[in-house]
Amino acid sequence: MPHTEALLFPLAMIALVAEAMTAALAAGRRKMDWLGVAMLGCVTALGGGSVRDVLLGHYPLWWVKSPYLLLLTGGAALATIGLAQFVHRFHGIFLVLDAIGLVVFTIMGCNVAMSMDQPFLIVVVAGMITGCVGGVIRDVLCNDVPLLFRAELYASVSIVTGLLYIGGIKYGLSPDVVIAAAVVVGFVFRLLAIRLKWEMPKFVFERDDH
Amino acid sequence: MPHTEALLFPLAMIALVAEAMTAALAAGRRKMDWLGVAMLGCVTALGGGSVRDVLLGHYPLWWVKSPYLLLLTGGAALATIGLAQFVHRFHGIFLVLDAIGLVVFTIMGCNVAMSMDQPFLIVVVAGMITGCVGGVIRDVLCNDVPLLFRAELYASVSIVTGLLYIGGIKYGLSPDVVIAAAVVVGFVFRLLAIRLKWEMPKFVFERDDH
Amino acid sequence: MPHTEALLFPLAMIALVAEAMTAALAAGRRKMDWLGVAMLGCVTALGGGSVRDVLLGHYPLWWVKSPYLLLLTGGAALATIGLAQFVHRFHGIFLVLDAIGLVVFTIMGCNVAMSMDQPFLIVVVAGMITGCVGGVIRDVLCNDVPLLFRAELYASVSIVTGLLYIGGIKYGLSPDVVIAAAVVVGFVFRLLAIRLKWEMPKFVFERDDH
Repeated sequence: MPHTEALLFPLAMIALVAEAMTAALAAGRRKMDWLGVAMLGCVTALGGGSVRDVLLGHYPLWWVKSPYLLLLTGGAALATIGLAQFVHRFHGIFLVLDAIGLVVFTIMGCNVAMSMDQPFLIVVVAGMITGCVGGVIRDVLCNDVPLLFRAELYASVSIVTGLLYIGGIKYGLSPDVVIAAAVVVGFVFRLLAIRLKWEMPKFVFERDDH
Repeated sequence: MPHTEALLFPLAMIALVAEAMTAALAAGRRKMDWLGVAMLGCVTALGGGSVRDVLLGHYPLWWVKSPYLLLLTGGAALATIGLAQFVHRFHGIFLVLDAIGLVVFTIMGCNVAMSMDQPFLIVVVAGMITGCVGGVIRDVLCNDVPLLFRAELYASVSIVTGLLYIGGIKYGLSPDVVIAAAVVVGFVFRLLAIRLKWEMPKFVFERDDH
Repeated sequence: MPHTEALLFPLAMIALVAEAMTAALAAGRRKMDWLGVAMLGCVTALGGGSVRDVLLGHYPLWWVKSPYLLLLTGGAALATIGLAQFVHRFHGIFLVLDAIGLVVFTIMGCNVAMSMDQPFLIVVVAGMITGCVGGVIRDVLCNDVPLLFRAELYASVSIVTGLLYIGGIKYGLSPDVVIAAAVVVGFVFRLLAIRLKWEMPKFVFERDDH
């Protein structure tokens, strides 16, 4: 669906830059060197899509086919070093960009799985992997328990976005309308979740038998 | 080998559920939210087979071909939240189910590699990856040094089970007999190792030159 | 390029052994058991090339095609247990072998990507992944923030080596000459970086807004 891709493309570029910049801030908290910052930016921004493609056997990977994406994401991470002193003032902008990233990556992941005629559940999971796994890799490399598993409505937003998108497409609505609706709903859901501190109930199991 | 698969199938389902439930308990110790619990359950139960398939280039992955496995493992993990207060009484049952999982996953992994005509050593390794790597991913995501590398006879049980299984098949014995023998030997070996606290010698290297 | 491979082959074997042995020492610091030591040796020595092959869709993986590599690396790791009390005296030798490993793995990774007609940037990245990712996996499994992102000129050496190698090949120089030059330059660069404590500037970001 080249038309749909054209519509998503500018949002995807914004999303990649946003993910790379948040990764750079995480790298800065771990006192990584400049090359480490650039690498963590690339891995975080492109990791979710890469894991999806490897699991689905969907070759070549996006950044292998379009290597300039490595320059874009690595460059955005490096630029963050210079911008860091201003960045904390723009914390809100980052959350907005990151929310765009989550929603746009999810839709792109669903598209890939649909283009391979995967069943419904796999399409949802492909969207969620694309939207969320980059951040998991970032947290593992920073030696944290991934935020994804612990807090905030992040994967949930991805699932809702994916369901809405796939539902609309299956229902036969115009892809442009469905994308717009899914992006807006997912985006608003994510920002509301942050603002209102929505959280899913947690499972706390203290008893340790081994 | 459809017949063999039929024999292993119910054991495999039990194994998937057991792995997902132990992962859910690990998630509870880290205070993960419900969706995190479900995701960790899926990743732990299905991760070993996924890594094996990706390394061998064996597509499509099991859960991509049979997406209901995601519901089974995610559902088992979620159910564990409700059952947790009872679960500590059934710690022994979990160890038994987990031992079944280890042995059954190992045999299924060997089967996949044999169906690709891989050499002997790769068949053993494929079994071990299938049996053990899910737990490694779980530990990495929970920010622990993987238990696999540190304690208990776990990978060893997988290797012995795999060797016995492949040896019997190569020797021309009936697959059913070989499976039964490998399952029983591996299972008893694992439970004895737990009960008698068998451990492999450890390598302790304190001197830190850099 | 079979001739080139013949030239690199003995260096590659030395590199695999060196990587497995350094991984074994890391395992010893974590008090892993003997099988854990062997596994960490295999994963560290062969992990970089495996990740590269999976990302590029380059099957079969090296160790799947040549399973004796598992015995070589696992065996080297086990041998390290017996040698550990002498090893600390030979710390310098390890740094030298590790530097050879970094440079040789980088060139082999570039070769694989070039044999797939990948674009320039992907060839450099393939070399870097091959040279560096094994150590990242080792650090993640040992529950450390990967050294690669934090300290020393390691990835930088890999990039310089890769650029020199690809540049020379593209320029039409004899592969033997280019390999020799890239190995020597990369090797000397790495040892100088260690000796003179060269480091890249670090990005330190203390402010934590979330």
